[in-house]
Amino acid sequence: MTSIKDYIETHKERFLEELYGLIRIPSISSETEHKPDMERAAAYWREQLLKAGADRAEVMPTEGNPVVYGEKKIDPHAKTVLVYGHYDVMPVDPVELWKTDPFEPQIIGDRLYARGANDDKGQSFMHAKAFEYMVRENCLPCNVKFMLEGEEEIGSPSLEKWCAEHKQMLEADIILVSDTSMIAPDIPSITVGLRGLSYVEVKVTGPNKDLHSGIFGGAVANPANVLAGLIAGLIDENGHITVPGFYDDVVEISAEERAAMAKAPFDEAAYRKALDIARTQGEKGFSTIERTGIRPSLDVNGMWSGYTGEGAKTVLPSTAHAKISMRLVPDQNWEKIGRQIADCLQQRAPQSVKVEVNVLHGGQAYGADLQSDAYKAAEQAYLEVYGKLPIPTRSGGSIPIIAAFERVLGIKSLLMGFGLEADAIHSPNESYLLENFYRGVETIVAFYKHFGK
Amino acid sequence: MTSIKDYIETHKERFLEELYGLIRIPSISSETEHKPDMERAAAYWREQLLKAGADRAEVMPTEGNPVVYGEKKIDPHAKTVLVYGHYDVMPVDPVELWKTDPFEPQIIGDRLYARGANDDKGQSFMHAKAFEYMVRENCLPCNVKFMLEGEEEIGSPSLEKWCAEHKQMLEADIILVSDTSMIAPDIPSITVGLRGLSYVEVKVTGPNKDLHSGIFGGAVANPANVLAGLIAGLIDENGHITVPGFYDDVVEISAEERAAMAKAPFDEAAYRKALDIARTQGEKGFSTIERTGIRPSLDVNGMWSGYTGEGAKTVLPSTAHAKISMRLVPDQNWEKIGRQIADCLQQRAPQSVKVEVNVLHGGQAYGADLQSDAYKAAEQAYLEVYGKLPIPTRSGGSIPIIAAFERVLGIKSLLMGFGLEADAIHSPNESYLLENFYRGVETIVAFYKHFGK
Repeated sequence: MTSIKDYIETHKERFLEELYGLIRIPSISSETEHKPDMERAAAYWREQLLKAGADRAEVMPTEGNPVVYGEKKIDPHAKTVLVYGHYDVMPVDPVELWKTDPFEPQIIGDRLYARGANDDKGQSFMHAKAFEYMVRENCLPCNVKFMLEGEEEIGSPSLEKWCAEHKQMLEADIILVSDTSMIAPDIPSITVGLRGLSYVEVKVTGPNKDLHSGIFGGAVANPANVLAGLIAGLIDENGHITVPGFYDDVVEISAEERAAMAKAPFDEAAYRKALDIARTQGEKGFSTIERTGIRPSLDVNGMWSGYTGEGAKTVLPSTAHAKISMRLVPDQNWEKIGRQIADCLQQRAPQSVKVEVNVLHGGQAYGADLQSDAYKAAEQAYLEVYGKLPIPTRSGGSIPIIAAFERVLGIKSLLMGFGLEADAIHSPNESYLLENFYRGVETIVAFYKHFGK
Repeated sequence: MTSIKDYIETHKERFLEELYGLIRIPSISSETEHKPDMERAAAYWREQLLKAGADRAEVMPTEGNPVVYGEKKIDPHAKTVLVYGHYDVMPVDPVELWKTDPFEPQIIGDRLYARGANDDKGQSFMHAKAFEYMVRENCLPCNVKFMLEGEEEIGSPSLEKWCAEHKQMLEADIILVSDTSMIAPDIPSITVGLRGLSYVEVKVTGPNKDLHSGIFGGAVANPANVLAGLIAGLIDENGHITVPGFYDDVVEISAEERAAMAKAPFDEAAYRKALDIARTQGEKGFSTIERTGIRPSLDVNGMWSGYTGEGAKTVLPSTAHAKISMRLVPDQNWEKIGRQIADCLQQRAPQSVKVEVNVLHGGQAYGADLQSDAYKAAEQAYLEVYGKLPIPTRSGGSIPIIAAFERVLGIKSLLMGFGLEADAIHSPNESYLLENFYRGVETIVAFYKHFGK
């Protein structure tokens, strides 16, 4: 039997050529003129799955862009892995900042440059190649299902419904996803937490029209000043969020997991320097990594009131507005949190103004089970390929569909990401370290071996 | 000798026709295409002053629009009155809201409708007609000087320098101004205070670029949240401004004057209803009238940060901005106050952000001397015409040039205004109550009589 290392060595040129075929299709989901490209990309994936060894592969319609579904069943008693990825990509603007054509992949040094090189064409394609190897070498130990969507970069508006409609077809023991990053090429990590989000918009209304700040200033509550006070009151001097009940459902992370997280290398001085800030700031008693990983946060995302042009205008504004979002952790419920902040702001506002709070949208946080078979198998896979255990990391960001998978399908996800921060996903000159592509394929094969036992 | 009442009765049609000639010139100082109209309006005033009896009248250049200067000297030992007014007007937009042509004066009911009917063509023209009467009837008891500028509505950018260059020519015992309002047609009042202004712009800078609020939220100080906290901290729960030293130079108003002010009729319920607010709000221990008249205030005039478009964007903004102005009272110094708030914000800001404060502009507050000969003469004049003493009122707004007159020329001003709130100055359908025009002329003549004694 050919080892995966040898297999990769023999077939790497073809692997890349096949990936290039996918990358060359400009499947930008947010731009309607690329609608035909979404169909082309889906069809390409279907073909690749069949070539790699799927028994069945289909381009299935949704309310938006189609989902590519493929499967190979080896044994009804074997475990089933559902691979999730997405074939859509982000726009390429500002295109003038690209050093290469974003849709003509090019290797420079040890990296492949293109839109989608990492996110998520490059990362999802590793699964196709790992699958191909296991089929051809007859060592596939699990049933495999593939689900590739075309709307991840616009918030997966159709996938949840599609999943609910195909629940039985999608039955699996684990959802395997490569759409995240690892700490460094030689420091493997698994994303074990994603924060949720509750996003609200606040409007404070004072007088029924803009007033002259001389004639009325001092006697009429200024909604901008009131809003500033309300915002300021949401976080106390220890960095705690003061919304009543906000922390009620927060799962405290064990000392063991915090210790494991703390092993991740983190250079705070470099972090500050990159952001050009003199100090970090956050909740007392937690590290920077913890503040963005295991703790909820509250940020003003936008704020506006009155005159914002050049120079001076002496207006006492009629209204003041803010967009405020809270990043949530398990088991906070985003709808409950939205109601809590709305109630809190209403109650704290002086009677001299009116306050409206609209919950714009949100998503639940996600936490992996570090004691699960899938996680243990992944640990062994990384140990085999990298010679060290992966560090469990928690991302401050949200991938709402991951929480939706658990809610709708009842299946946990395993986020084996091989991206790096240097890959500049969503930005000009996106790239993917070729070594990570190959080692990703290798690690995925190792995962199946351990998980299928 | 003809009484002023009879004189007005005989000549009122001509008075109005002469005023119409001035009103028909669209002398909008903020619109450059009206530059020739500024010259025409100045020339018209010069002619009117000569016709009314001035020994000398000139259109004098400044760095901006010209000043019309006129004078009649009767006796080097007599007191001298310097009349100040302005011939420029505000724009007329939105012109579709006007019920009449803004530059074709029209009487409807008891009011004259036109741009400038009150501000300040109508009000300043009363002085020309009072002067004409006193000259023709040979009862002018004072030397009189006229100074009419063409840039009041754009902040009098040239007048202060012009005054400094013509200090000797402008020597006078009092500057007489009709450019303010009185409480009601039957409740005369004199504006004895104008608040000053110190206007600053604040910029809070956090990270060197907008960040993803998921990845960084909770660990990096958010400049919008920080700015909200800084603004909130500027006013305490009693409505006191917390900037160190802010109240050091505030002149406390005597119990007598507060009692006199309190005689002004004020319907707080109607005030709240007009603004559609449930409560007024301001400094503890002071009434609404006092809060805008004799006490300083602090208002956010504008505020902006991050994403302000529709929907949700999860950005942790790099910067946050606010325009903040403070209305000042005697003897606060606007430049000192600007420095104080700048220092205060710098000191209070956490080290996780950078704060810049720019003092944009300002003006000193003005307070009249209620014990002066001029004020006493004005009191007698109103008593004679209205049958009651005028109520001393303090305007929350600013007329920076009034403080500049005192600083540059060393002359106090007397603000005998005959406007009403209903006149809608600066707005569509500006008007002036004809009765106030005639009684204004009468009161001005009475003032000269008492002041000239």
